[in-house]
Amino acid sequence: MREVYMDHVATNPVHPEVLETMLPYFKEHFGNPLSIYEPGIKAREAIENARVQTAALINAKPNEIIFTSSGAEANNFSLKGIALANQNKGKHIIISKIEHHSVLNSARFLEKSGFAVTYLSVDKNGLIDPAVVEKAITKETILISIIHASPEIGTVEPIAKIGEIAKQRDIIFHTDAVATTGNIPVNVQSLNVDLLSLAAHQFYGPKGTAALYLKAGTRIVPLIYGGIQEGGRRAGTENVPAIAGMGKAAEIAKRDLQKRMNHVKPLRDRLISNTLKIDKAFLTGHPEQRLPGHASFVAEYIEGESMLLLLAAKGIYSASGSACSSKALKSSPVLLSIGIPTHRAQGSVVFTLGEGTTEQDIDYLNEVFPQIITRLREISPYSKGWGEIEEQHV
Amino acid sequence: MREVYMDHVATNPVHPEVLETMLPYFKEHFGNPLSIYEPGIKAREAIENARVQTAALINAKPNEIIFTSSGAEANNFSLKGIALANQNKGKHIIISKIEHHSVLNSARFLEKSGFAVTYLSVDKNGLIDPAVVEKAITKETILISIIHASPEIGTVEPIAKIGEIAKQRDIIFHTDAVATTGNIPVNVQSLNVDLLSLAAHQFYGPKGTAALYLKAGTRIVPLIYGGIQEGGRRAGTENVPAIAGMGKAAEIAKRDLQKRMNHVKPLRDRLISNTLKIDKAFLTGHPEQRLPGHASFVAEYIEGESMLLLLAAKGIYSASGSACSSKALKSSPVLLSIGIPTHRAQGSVVFTLGEGTTEQDIDYLNEVFPQIITRLREISPYSKGWGEIEEQHV
Repeated sequence: MREVYMDHVATNPVHPEVLETMLPYFKEHFGNPLSIYEPGIKAREAIENARVQTAALINAKPNEIIFTSSGAEANNFSLKGIALANQNKGKHIIISKIEHHSVLNSARFLEKSGFAVTYLSVDKNGLIDPAVVEKAITKETILISIIHASPEIGTVEPIAKIGEIAKQRDIIFHTDAVATTGNIPVNVQSLNVDLLSLAAHQFYGPKGTAALYLKAGTRIVPLIYGGIQEGGRRAGTENVPAIAGMGKAAEIAKRDLQKRMNHVKPLRDRLISNTLKIDKAFLTGHPEQRLPGHASFVAEYIEGESMLLLLAAKGIYSASGSACSSKALKSSPVLLSIGIPTHRAQGSVVFTLGEGTTEQDIDYLNEVFPQIITRLREISPYSKGWGEIEEQHV
Repeated sequence: MREVYMDHVATNPVHPEVLETMLPYFKEHFGNPLSIYEPGIKAREAIENARVQTAALINAKPNEIIFTSSGAEANNFSLKGIALANQNKGKHIIISKIEHHSVLNSARFLEKSGFAVTYLSVDKNGLIDPAVVEKAITKETILISIIHASPEIGTVEPIAKIGEIAKQRDIIFHTDAVATTGNIPVNVQSLNVDLLSLAAHQFYGPKGTAALYLKAGTRIVPLIYGGIQEGGRRAGTENVPAIAGMGKAAEIAKRDLQKRMNHVKPLRDRLISNTLKIDKAFLTGHPEQRLPGHASFVAEYIEGESMLLLLAAKGIYSASGSACSSKALKSSPVLLSIGIPTHRAQGSVVFTLGEGTTEQDIDYLNEVFPQIITRLREISPYSKGWGEIEEQHV
């Protein structure tokens, strides 16, 4: 059976050069990077080299990179660490309603700890209006955190403009760039951010390693206390092979970024234009201002899990939204935020392309997907319209 | 040059079977474990298999294992998560003065957040008296955390007895078993613990993965919020290859535990008896109740870093204490706790043996180490005694 992996936003295989870079650190150079002898020194050099490579991908300085174990950890670290370090200045935080659960739930945790959080709405394309951010700022605001692009709908937010506003008002600004770093240009200088989260497995690096960009001079309270690793800001014996792999993946992503974008965008566009020919199928997220390899849809009168299972049965691997919430999905807060009610959101599907995606893959998907929709609608009780459900919701 | 790795407590290379287990999950079965399609299902199966293997090593149930990125994370999670989940019952925590920095600094963080912490003293062998723990308990006590064995002095604490006391008083009990799990029998049932931290790289598993044993029914507040991974208790895309490797390492450790202990103990004993022949060299930690591969000393009138560097120059890789503090080492809180003042603690050295350690390694160390001590004392201003320094301290 043909296998078409269309879930690159969930995770990716490691690049062959990445695995090659990692291997010596499992056995040969296995030492603890804090040690003063050769196997430890080799490990420390690997980490510092990866720090330079990772910094270069986002135009940061190496000492502004703190390695973490995941994008979720980097997001938790940002929100809780900045809130705790600045609570004497104020206790108000601004985020959007379409943040990843790691930001959303960290904000909810801070609410329980006495912080006030404003959850900003987005428009029907998922865009956050910088003017709305500006209006939400109070004298108490210490932190703004807005996602760079939602993995569910692909919309790329106007981070640079929001960052400009934050800078003018002297408010710390974080962006969750997990879905964007390695997929579109991410430059911490032009984005005007103080903190930025990124994850290696989003750009063919290994799972289990990620990073937080923390602008030099920004105070933060650690999330993980312990030894003096990462300048005392993030403890725990370093995941040396994975960090070395992340550095290599960052180097390759920087080198190949334009090529990767040029590869996926026309394929994605063809997928979108073909899918929109299906009756009652709609694109979600912004039509242009979106991740180049990201195509997300809602097919009406369809139960999403059945759709994913039938696609998988045909070898097409896709998701209904964020991987982190797919199994918990009652209703997607992101889809609700762009005005898609729960029952319609059930038919959501996200296809994300990668450097291995081919024209033939898209042809195959364009052939199979409409058939699956037709088949599911034949058995759907709502195939003639939402009827009562819709009336209840209006 | 001969290379003798005597720092197994700092970290270890991965076992060849461990790396073999990990490899398919970097590329072939690279999917996100939350996905509903084949590459994701394979990844999820690997994690659940590793959970069974890890649980078996410590006699826990699989659903009592929460994978984390490091022992430090597991320790932070334990202290902060249990404190926050139980703060309505009381705000008093008991730990020892010889805890790892990840426990010590988490406790200090909780002190700043309004909790009271009692830091228990140990005797000159590093032992904690269970009666002292019992006396420290107040009506407000919600958590006791005592290290299973200190990586600096190797003393194995009477955890089972302390656990019995905690159980009688209905207080949650955590032990940091990072230095013990995989090296001596660790059984969560007979140790009477509610939480236990362990790290894969301590028993030839990969860096970047560790676990928290959390007894079924114990409430905890997450350290890392986000998706529904690990039953909603620890978010972040799972480090699948490393977790799979940890499971295999746990399986091998369980199988080989007695063999490994039988291998290192007589070698360790020979190392100790030879080293004690050196003038003014003392064993630190308990003479019998200690990790079987752990030999720690203080050589008087010696500056520790020079000693480690000269040893490394001879290919002998060792540490002055905990790897996590080695570079920050002003004075070791652990050595201070057992009554060794700062100036004497400078001459501390820790040799830790592993399954690859040979008789020849010990012979070589026994030959080289006394020579290095002699050489350093020839240039030491204190070689005739501590003089004024000692008088200042007395």
